[in-house]
Amino acid sequence: MRVLDPAMTLAIDCMGGDHGPRVTVPAAVDFLKLHPEARVSLVGLEEAIRAELRAASAEREPRLAVRHAPEVVAMDEAPAAALRGKRESSMRIAVEQVKSGAAQAAVSAGNTGALMAISRFVLKTLPGIDRPAIVSVLPTLTGSTYMLDLGANVDCRAEHLLQFAVMGSVLAAAMEHKERPTVGLLNIGEESIKGNEAVKQAAGLLRASGLNFIGNVEGDGIYRGASDVIVCDGFVGNVALKTTEGLVQMLGAFLKEEFTRNPLTRATALLARPVLAAFKQRVDHRRYNGATLIGLRGIVVKSHGSADAFAFRRALERAQAEAANDVVGCISRRLAPVVAEAG
Amino acid sequence: MRVLDPAMTLAIDCMGGDHGPRVTVPAAVDFLKLHPEARVSLVGLEEAIRAELRAASAEREPRLAVRHAPEVVAMDEAPAAALRGKRESSMRIAVEQVKSGAAQAAVSAGNTGALMAISRFVLKTLPGIDRPAIVSVLPTLTGSTYMLDLGANVDCRAEHLLQFAVMGSVLAAAMEHKERPTVGLLNIGEESIKGNEAVKQAAGLLRASGLNFIGNVEGDGIYRGASDVIVCDGFVGNVALKTTEGLVQMLGAFLKEEFTRNPLTRATALLARPVLAAFKQRVDHRRYNGATLIGLRGIVVKSHGSADAFAFRRALERAQAEAANDVVGCISRRLAPVVAEAG
Repeated sequence: MRVLDPAMTLAIDCMGGDHGPRVTVPAAVDFLKLHPEARVSLVGLEEAIRAELRAASAEREPRLAVRHAPEVVAMDEAPAAALRGKRESSMRIAVEQVKSGAAQAAVSAGNTGALMAISRFVLKTLPGIDRPAIVSVLPTLTGSTYMLDLGANVDCRAEHLLQFAVMGSVLAAAMEHKERPTVGLLNIGEESIKGNEAVKQAAGLLRASGLNFIGNVEGDGIYRGASDVIVCDGFVGNVALKTTEGLVQMLGAFLKEEFTRNPLTRATALLARPVLAAFKQRVDHRRYNGATLIGLRGIVVKSHGSADAFAFRRALERAQAEAANDVVGCISRRLAPVVAEAG
Repeated sequence: MRVLDPAMTLAIDCMGGDHGPRVTVPAAVDFLKLHPEARVSLVGLEEAIRAELRAASAEREPRLAVRHAPEVVAMDEAPAAALRGKRESSMRIAVEQVKSGAAQAAVSAGNTGALMAISRFVLKTLPGIDRPAIVSVLPTLTGSTYMLDLGANVDCRAEHLLQFAVMGSVLAAAMEHKERPTVGLLNIGEESIKGNEAVKQAAGLLRASGLNFIGNVEGDGIYRGASDVIVCDGFVGNVALKTTEGLVQMLGAFLKEEFTRNPLTRATALLARPVLAAFKQRVDHRRYNGATLIGLRGIVVKSHGSADAFAFRRALERAQAEAANDVVGCISRRLAPVVAEAG
């Protein structure tokens, strides 16, 4: 990820996630160390944040500011309640800093539904976009792929899938510096007659879109690296993503069981440790942490709730890179002719 | 899988799959060796089948019969064309042997769509079932789970999901000898407010169904073993299954790359070979080969098209076990009160 303009500020919801400031603050401190021109705005309960800054010996870091927010959105809170009832939440204030221009991106490990509701309300969607989507980078056999939607929209019409394709394509182009990223439509067969109604109609729209549409991609195509962008509705995308999580856990557990079966296998494990560590690092989901709420007039990145400091820092780096590559501007420009035509 | 009555005949479509008789015939011969009271009807081009029987020195095996079928359904043939245009196909004749009672189950590695179309036409669906589904056993952290639908039905209403749940539950009960298998509804969140419309309505039907419904299960719950049965529409199920295939391939390739990186890692691989072999065997998808077309008035099992003889034999064993456990009778009895009420 090439960074064009690193002199920017990230607004961090320090209270979100399973661990709150205990993870978010050290991650922010590490992030500043690795990115000497970046700045962060730490939003949340001031006392808790200051305590973590002291623990990290970072109280006097000039590139950070603490912004007190008296309220916290709970992980299981209804999005509508968080939106209407907690106007002083750390999540809300972090997103508002993007709106005001005080920050170029917001990052939160909090409640996904609440973050989406607040972001839509505060930032609004881009002209030409009906619904923001959740997009994430996944590793593949040949590199990586941008997949969306991963859970924001459960009942999608064909036009929504087309909008996801446009956004994903622009995002992949901006972030990976590919001129015409390939776009695949997630389906249950490669033939164009396959799929549910929305997907069949979407294929028609995609063929006429001017995007580099390569046709249907089956589930196994995701990790084969069949296309740079994979488009699907949020229900299917979320299931695919979480199936991946569960499967990786199961395979990891089985591998561990085999290596700890008896003294001989345990000795083998000791010898194989460097290789297994390299493998583990390579498939470490923490490296891919940070899903973008795309389609908004501003950058909002969602970290996994269970992220540790390493994973949360990766989400910060994703937000920074998207801001540096002006992802929102790129999408707006791509949509301008569509919007002009519709208007 | 307890086998109650092994004296039965399986009708095998020998021409289906990527490899045809070269795989299906040796698999059938192995199957007979391992199951001394089983019988098979080998359906397909007689010459090709006899050649493979000679190669396997099994020409005089008294427990097998060869039934010539002059036509073959191609792997990419449209289901309607296969159904209407090829009444003498090996696939059709194998299924007809189930209909006539000459065989207790049919197995094919051929074209899934054609197999479903032919099976529905020849066998018909059970009373109370609108649409047959495709169900398969998947390994989990704690054992295994029955997941359906895996691709037969892409646009499902809530009632279809309920029917899948009933069939999956009866199948798991009959095959695993569990009295009240737990049923989970695949969804994108555990809260009941989540999901698309069909899933939300299905949750209501499932709660009222008398099944052992445990609520929503997220994608990671599949391999965690969250429930004995996982219900979803065929689009989502197919994507989840194929995502699994792609991910396992990718992880396998990465693991291999790490173990072949340099002479030292290659030496480690040599030492770790028994452990890696045990792991590989444990996650070997071939062991789980054989998806059942459920909801029909007869047993039809679909093998993966790329199955080798070991994998195809596993599909034969699945068909045999389902016949032995009278899965079709169990489902009919479970549905009888529902049908009586509706009538």
